[in-house]
Amino acid sequence: MQSIMNASIGVFDSGFGGLTVLRALLHRLPSARFTFLGDTARLPYGSKSRRTIARYAAESAQFLVQKQQAQFLVIACNTASALALDAIQAAVPVPVLGVIEPGAASAHAASKTGDVLVIATDATVQSHAYAAACNALGLRALEKACPLLVPLVEEGWTSHSVTAEVIRIYLAELMEEAHSKGMTPDTLVLGCTHYPLLRPLFESAVPAGISVIDSAEATAETVARLLQKQNPESCGGEENATLAPQVHCFATDSVEKFERLGSRFLGCSTGNVELVDLGG
Amino acid sequence: MQSIMNASIGVFDSGFGGLTVLRALLHRLPSARFTFLGDTARLPYGSKSRRTIARYAAESAQFLVQKQQAQFLVIACNTASALALDAIQAAVPVPVLGVIEPGAASAHAASKTGDVLVIATDATVQSHAYAAACNALGLRALEKACPLLVPLVEEGWTSHSVTAEVIRIYLAELMEEAHSKGMTPDTLVLGCTHYPLLRPLFESAVPAGISVIDSAEATAETVARLLQKQNPESCGGEENATLAPQVHCFATDSVEKFERLGSRFLGCSTGNVELVDLGG
Repeated sequence: MQSIMNASIGVFDSGFGGLTVLRALLHRLPSARFTFLGDTARLPYGSKSRRTIARYAAESAQFLVQKQQAQFLVIACNTASALALDAIQAAVPVPVLGVIEPGAASAHAASKTGDVLVIATDATVQSHAYAAACNALGLRALEKACPLLVPLVEEGWTSHSVTAEVIRIYLAELMEEAHSKGMTPDTLVLGCTHYPLLRPLFESAVPAGISVIDSAEATAETVARLLQKQNPESCGGEENATLAPQVHCFATDSVEKFERLGSRFLGCSTGNVELVDLGG
Repeated sequence: MQSIMNASIGVFDSGFGGLTVLRALLHRLPSARFTFLGDTARLPYGSKSRRTIARYAAESAQFLVQKQQAQFLVIACNTASALALDAIQAAVPVPVLGVIEPGAASAHAASKTGDVLVIATDATVQSHAYAAACNALGLRALEKACPLLVPLVEEGWTSHSVTAEVIRIYLAELMEEAHSKGMTPDTLVLGCTHYPLLRPLFESAVPAGISVIDSAEATAETVARLLQKQNPESCGGEENATLAPQVHCFATDSVEKFERLGSRFLGCSTGNVELVDLGG
């Protein structure tokens, strides 16, 4: 692996949400080179089957590694991380990190009771990938699918009263189920890359004593730590933040829409987005 | 074309919503044979570009005609009808009917003021296909994208207070825009095949004097009329309703999910759904 100073990191998502992970990565590794691919022609993955998701994700990973020379791959998509990490690792010859393990590790660091709640898309929940990763760390996890939250974020209703009400309903259902199982949760994992945009609403809605964990931030920290371990002298931390970040975005569908919506997730302009045809 | 008694009708949608059109078709033509394809591996079309939608829809149409011998094709998807009807007609050698023209014709029959409102997905609205079809009939049309309604229907919140509130907000925005343009609308077209499941909420929410038009019903009526015109003696109307309907459903992704969700839209069991790979 090259120095962090010029490491080439591929970041993949089915859509725009993964840009919240890229945003966290840019903050941690401001001098790395990033290539982001949003497979927007085939989104959302969250409602599709494991077989279909694995095929789409492997094709996307191969584009980033073979065509864009990524030396490290971040799967900035909870659904693909949950259902296709093995398929992606088999498809490319570079290190691959998903968002599930870092999210679970972060929950492990935060939880005192050992009981954590996870909210995510349908497919992520049905995979029980978060529960498995949490169990492996000695945590009990209760997962819940919240399929309305992604559309609410994409509608731009990130601080709307309707969104607050939907979050209240989902959390009430989740807390009721947790209590019925005798759990005493103290940690809530935002297991979807769209959810960081709703973090203020979640912070207001969770019962007192429950802390909110963001998989995007946890993943960026893990990537920085892994790269730094290999290059302990060239830390890519905030002291390099004056360097201009190098980001190149690709999408498999409308680049105009990607540029328009993407900036909400990235927190700044995506720059010119390039259209790529993966043949889907 | 064969007699209605054994006409083979292909019905296509990106997902499950088109089953509301199939439901209306079964009511009108209970003795025809129907083959339904839901391109669920690539849904939703509503957020994708014209180029991508045209490619997906043409492949789906070819499956129904070439592999399933459909002799008449109903595009039970507003987005594909709006953006890809020409591409589909060019791809297959059988008559093809979309849902836009019947919906506009039905609005024309209902409206006295000549001003109609249309709600639909993003891509349908951006195509302005309803406005064009309405204008061709001498109507003025105002269109609005309502991207939260499909996820709310798919969450099963078809009579939920959150859904009623979202509808109230969308309709208030639409009425305000109509009045600012000096329009006096008396007709609301439900321009998405998911929306018939919200019809009771819409009926409660629309201002007095506005009638609600359902493109699914309008399309089924048009299909029945077209077939009857070719076979005036073998009317497929309700007198044949005792015959068992023949429906065969295909999906490009999880058949279990299709069977589970599809019955909500069809109003009865979908029967065994078969998986098909269109190579996407």
